[in-house]
Amino acid sequence: MKILVINCGSSSLKYQLIDMDGEQLMAKGLVERIGIEGSRVKHETTGKDKKVIEQDLKDHKDALKIVMDSIIDSEYGAIASLDEIGAVGHRVVHGGEDFADSVIIDEAVIEAIKKNFDVAPLHNPPNIMGIEAVSTLLPNVKQVAVFDTAFHQTMPAKNYIYALPYDTYEDYKIRRYGFHGTSHKYVTERAADMVGKSKDQVNLVTCHLGNGASITAVKEGKSYDTTMGFTPLEGLPMGTRSGNIDPAIITFLMDKKGLDGAGIDNLLNKESGVLGISGVSSDFRDIEEAMANGNQRAELALDVYETDAAKFIAGYFTHFDALEDIDGIVFTAGLGENSAETRANIIKKLSVFGVEIDSEANAMRGEEKIVSTDASSVKVMVIPTNEELMIARDTLNLVK
Amino acid sequence: MKILVINCGSSSLKYQLIDMDGEQLMAKGLVERIGIEGSRVKHETTGKDKKVIEQDLKDHKDALKIVMDSIIDSEYGAIASLDEIGAVGHRVVHGGEDFADSVIIDEAVIEAIKKNFDVAPLHNPPNIMGIEAVSTLLPNVKQVAVFDTAFHQTMPAKNYIYALPYDTYEDYKIRRYGFHGTSHKYVTERAADMVGKSKDQVNLVTCHLGNGASITAVKEGKSYDTTMGFTPLEGLPMGTRSGNIDPAIITFLMDKKGLDGAGIDNLLNKESGVLGISGVSSDFRDIEEAMANGNQRAELALDVYETDAAKFIAGYFTHFDALEDIDGIVFTAGLGENSAETRANIIKKLSVFGVEIDSEANAMRGEEKIVSTDASSVKVMVIPTNEELMIARDTLNLVK
Repeated sequence: MKILVINCGSSSLKYQLIDMDGEQLMAKGLVERIGIEGSRVKHETTGKDKKVIEQDLKDHKDALKIVMDSIIDSEYGAIASLDEIGAVGHRVVHGGEDFADSVIIDEAVIEAIKKNFDVAPLHNPPNIMGIEAVSTLLPNVKQVAVFDTAFHQTMPAKNYIYALPYDTYEDYKIRRYGFHGTSHKYVTERAADMVGKSKDQVNLVTCHLGNGASITAVKEGKSYDTTMGFTPLEGLPMGTRSGNIDPAIITFLMDKKGLDGAGIDNLLNKESGVLGISGVSSDFRDIEEAMANGNQRAELALDVYETDAAKFIAGYFTHFDALEDIDGIVFTAGLGENSAETRANIIKKLSVFGVEIDSEANAMRGEEKIVSTDASSVKVMVIPTNEELMIARDTLNLVK
Repeated sequence: MKILVINCGSSSLKYQLIDMDGEQLMAKGLVERIGIEGSRVKHETTGKDKKVIEQDLKDHKDALKIVMDSIIDSEYGAIASLDEIGAVGHRVVHGGEDFADSVIIDEAVIEAIKKNFDVAPLHNPPNIMGIEAVSTLLPNVKQVAVFDTAFHQTMPAKNYIYALPYDTYEDYKIRRYGFHGTSHKYVTERAADMVGKSKDQVNLVTCHLGNGASITAVKEGKSYDTTMGFTPLEGLPMGTRSGNIDPAIITFLMDKKGLDGAGIDNLLNKESGVLGISGVSSDFRDIEEAMANGNQRAELALDVYETDAAKFIAGYFTHFDALEDIDGIVFTAGLGENSAETRANIIKKLSVFGVEIDSEANAMRGEEKIVSTDASSVKVMVIPTNEELMIARDTLNLVK
């Protein structure tokens, strides 16, 4: 079966067409600036030249229409007819407490996703736009929702309850949800294979270190604790997000800078993180370059990031009875897959526990590989993530 | 020399009179409800009956006057004349970046403390009231300021910089300061003695677990990292304080509940923590009792607290090169000194690192003692704190 995977942002739409016989990528692409002047599509069918189409697109339905046209284009397309698409899988950011797994989309599911607009005002509405566009353009194709939060619904209460008045949980559903679930789940399954364990037995600390970053304790294949919380702002500092700060800073800064709620949220989500500390960039490659040129704030930004990552990993070790029970520390996503230096720096801070990187094995980008020494108390692995494939697999499982 | 130690709150004044020849407590007491109807003093001279005086006190000067009278009272007092007081030591909450050590109080020091009113609006103003009352009543006695933040001024930037726009540090001095410094310093010096190391060589993780709670990594006798931050709200959940939460929750809750800055600060500081989760009490003894009676939210509150404490301790292990380099985990303050169960529960979560409590040694309250097994990878110690003695020692060192 061929499955179309869709990930809608407020003004973007990412897609992949995957042939599940052999899990082969047939085509992928990105629509940018939807509803903004200068919209464009970058489409690439496997084995063919990349195609860029510039055309104004007023909404996600317009965007999806041009994606469909690209996929079946006789010159640069991947398939002959839309009838070949067996199902569509959507990334949906926030499933709240309603979804602990992926689900076939029907009216009740759409209502439940809309119910969670309140806790994910930036993310869930475009996800719904994508679902509605598919309903219009491919009315007979089954659609599946794969939630970023679902994998983390197995966390015990002690790891998801905040020390706030309990009615904030009862009345407003304020709790830790966790995100990047599809990625943490994907690398969990790969890691189980790599160490020869079944996927419901493997114990891991999985580190999704990209422009957004989260770390998860995986116990017997299930999410047990994770750093992102009510929203993707909590936990590690990220490209532009603050991660954890003293909560008292918020009202202090609002007062000092005359900011309202939207203003402070923007500061914490868009102007903070390694960008905020360094003043250089939210892109870790720029930070590393500035650091190599002697920029001390860039160095400080990376140091804070790596120090915090090591502290979270160590904290998650406490969820296990013995180091021997932990099958691996997994690095994934942009920085985790590609920065040998960041991996080495984080693992060096874990040497207190006898975790040891193999510099030679680690000197690579983007390979699925064990990068610790044989003597290391816990294995260290790099596993390139593939959220789209995970979404396609869940979609196939549900529709077949 | 006899030293009077003073700790002023907004409507309270705690004091101790200590004879530094032998470090003997001569008298101690508490003035409550200063400036509020129903003020009273509870005074106790060592070896004599406790005395309670009920009398309206309009300000801290009134309060200090009655303390002086009590200390020299012919019946229940401790000394014959105020001339015997050689110096006064004040606890001052926030020294900002201006004070890395205790200091003799002069006009410049008073100005600097006032400069920090902005970052400690609840705490520094009453400290100044206490200093001014002493200046009036004992004009010829030297006064010393001992700061809660001073011990933590040795932290490296990577542990005190938040991942916020850097100008929030430059313009508003928003950074991690850390608190309970006098307590962390006191137990550090005691722990060094207990393990036979000099106090500038000892490596520890010190856990001040009271109604307020903070954990500090002490490297070569100096604070290297600590859980409280810009204010005492950050870090662990506490009696009524939330500790770390997703920063995005703040504006979400302000919006939902229609709270302004003062309203949300009150919720986070006064209605959260174990009180918030349990709905029972901010007093850990009440929580333990409710839990024994089967209250599940009380159990959850304690579980969150102990889980978070263990994670912070584990995180701080990453600041050392090897477990053998860590001379001890120290428990102090109300809960740390008195709850064998909380100590045992926290240490159990560190068994992944080979830390092991000796249940027999641990079955006690408030004794200075090593409570780990001989096989434990890191020693565990209980050390009753004594902030007043630490203040008196610093005061003596500076005035003699």
